[in-house]
Amino acid sequence: MPAIGNEIGFATLPQHVHRKYAKKGFDFTIMVVGESGLGKSTLINCLFLADLYKSRKMVPVEELVERTVFIEKKQLDILEKGIKLKVTIIDTPGYGDAINTKNSFQLVENYIDDQFNQYFKDESGLNRKNIVDNRVHCCLYFISPIGRGLTQLDVQFMKRLHQKVNIVPIISKADALTPNELHLLKKKILKELEEHNINIFRIPECDSDEDEEFRRKDREIKDSIPFAVIGSTIQVEVNGRKTRGRVYPWGVIDIQDEQYSDFAKLKTFLSLHMQDLKDATNEVLYENYRAMFLAKIGNDSIRLTTKDLSSATPTDKLLQLKEEEIRRMQEQLLQMQEALRQSSAPVSSAQSADELSPQSGKDDE
Amino acid sequence: MPAIGNEIGFATLPQHVHRKYAKKGFDFTIMVVGESGLGKSTLINCLFLADLYKSRKMVPVEELVERTVFIEKKQLDILEKGIKLKVTIIDTPGYGDAINTKNSFQLVENYIDDQFNQYFKDESGLNRKNIVDNRVHCCLYFISPIGRGLTQLDVQFMKRLHQKVNIVPIISKADALTPNELHLLKKKILKELEEHNINIFRIPECDSDEDEEFRRKDREIKDSIPFAVIGSTIQVEVNGRKTRGRVYPWGVIDIQDEQYSDFAKLKTFLSLHMQDLKDATNEVLYENYRAMFLAKIGNDSIRLTTKDLSSATPTDKLLQLKEEEIRRMQEQLLQMQEALRQSSAPVSSAQSADELSPQSGKDDE
Repeated sequence: MPAIGNEIGFATLPQHVHRKYAKKGFDFTIMVVGESGLGKSTLINCLFLADLYKSRKMVPVEELVERTVFIEKKQLDILEKGIKLKVTIIDTPGYGDAINTKNSFQLVENYIDDQFNQYFKDESGLNRKNIVDNRVHCCLYFISPIGRGLTQLDVQFMKRLHQKVNIVPIISKADALTPNELHLLKKKILKELEEHNINIFRIPECDSDEDEEFRRKDREIKDSIPFAVIGSTIQVEVNGRKTRGRVYPWGVIDIQDEQYSDFAKLKTFLSLHMQDLKDATNEVLYENYRAMFLAKIGNDSIRLTTKDLSSATPTDKLLQLKEEEIRRMQEQLLQMQEALRQSSAPVSSAQSADELSPQSGKDDE
Repeated sequence: MPAIGNEIGFATLPQHVHRKYAKKGFDFTIMVVGESGLGKSTLINCLFLADLYKSRKMVPVEELVERTVFIEKKQLDILEKGIKLKVTIIDTPGYGDAINTKNSFQLVENYIDDQFNQYFKDESGLNRKNIVDNRVHCCLYFISPIGRGLTQLDVQFMKRLHQKVNIVPIISKADALTPNELHLLKKKILKELEEHNINIFRIPECDSDEDEEFRRKDREIKDSIPFAVIGSTIQVEVNGRKTRGRVYPWGVIDIQDEQYSDFAKLKTFLSLHMQDLKDATNEVLYENYRAMFLAKIGNDSIRLTTKDLSSATPTDKLLQLKEEEIRRMQEQLLQMQEALRQSSAPVSSAQSADELSPQSGKDDE
């Protein structure tokens, strides 16, 4: 079991994709969705060893009634053993907070659609060399350990979005469950996913030339879905080894202990299958979207995206103008975020990211 | 700390009220409200040592979308050291399950109103000797340990009902929280209750002639509100003593251990303050309701309840007929439940109630 705090584990990535990608660096966009209090920020903090949300304020309960979800975008540049990884984390604060959660997934869906839409435009445009891929490659969906399987909101969200984003289900705060309860909950969730024909991300089959050790690891990861994770920003010492954990009066939890936590497996999964998640997004989900989009608006869309305003209808023109305005605003927002990030807390490598998190260890074994 | 499984703890009741009540026996109606999965049935099972809900089936998630709350009534006759206690437990399955939880509390409110209404009618009628008091004396409100304080649903429910029922807030499944997290959550909940002017049940001040030990206990109970409880139907052995608990890979929990669980305090609270809860219901909450009711409908209601059909308006007559029909149906339902209960699982004393629960111990120290 690797010690937590000294490296993130992405340095093994190049073994799984071609060398040229390694030199160019990786871009990866991950979205976290789930009700407030399920430990989304803490898990992101644990996965990427950076405290991205320490300045976040809790919303008073009275503001939650009519609260709508909003999208929060953070970027993190990680440099590990010479390998560059740029992770974009899309958080969805407010999800499930309102009394009527019916519209909780609308904004999330819109965001995912917008990224596809933008990519489609860029791809159809003239300058295709420097397309920025903002598509969401993976959605970590947080399921509550309290409750008896999926909630209605969980089912509705996944049904609506499983054809647009790779859903990776997570049972969070899994230390609320005994091993038997966890086993039953996992079984129940898998059964409910099947009953509702929800397609979560499927890890591709092992290549035939992989060795036994790799196959075993692969099998273990597949068998542990939905990943049951425990997060923590607190440093503890378990058997003389420094790790992150939770201290209860009845015992101490090591979030990396694979006996009861799939945190280490989730980390391995992300590092092993980052490229698979990107490929599935590009080759399956985006192609689906593109086919539907083309079928829906026919040739108009191509004309529009190549800036042929003259032949477009007035509504199309208006739509195009609006979209361009939105795009400009998005760019401005991103620039402002980037500027803010650089001025207040420069995150330029895993080391500096680590410094942001006061409780993540730097002196581990 | 008393061993769990051999007695419920109500035998001390007569010390707190007059002897004649003890001979007559006690009636007590308790309601449990909270989202699915918060361990309501398990806690009731632990409190009254009876498995009242073992035949309950879980509702498939697709049926939860439009699911409305329903009211489930169970009765339990407990005989302990010669003292009779008849507990009526009102459960509210489905609370908070729907996508739109706006109407979750409507049925609960209606039920409480109906009992007040019925009592009012009986009290205004001719035969006042054998009035059956079905009013809800206490509402255990379950708050999730996941999340960051009260949810919107929690606030809305309590705001709506705190003037109609004694609310006793419970943080359930408290073993999901470290001592520090629990401390912060309790503080946050108390702050939010205050901010929203929600009146939970207030334990009356100690009498001036109570001894030091009683005062200490009383203070401890008051300080532990909202009670943080852990429930279990599993027998475990902790330090050679049999109790109910939860077995985690990182440690074993004894639900009676006051170091981290307020279960024992909740039990003591119910036994010490059962009469206070009944008095507050009768003298404050019911009187409020009665005053409002009288102010609203004036003398009409008195005429109606004394069956003076001739002088009532057509709408009043219709209303009266409907109410009588509802009452008849309620009586039929109760009779059927009673018949069912007696035929399938006779619960006539604490001993037989205990037998219903296969895992509750009978051979404790």
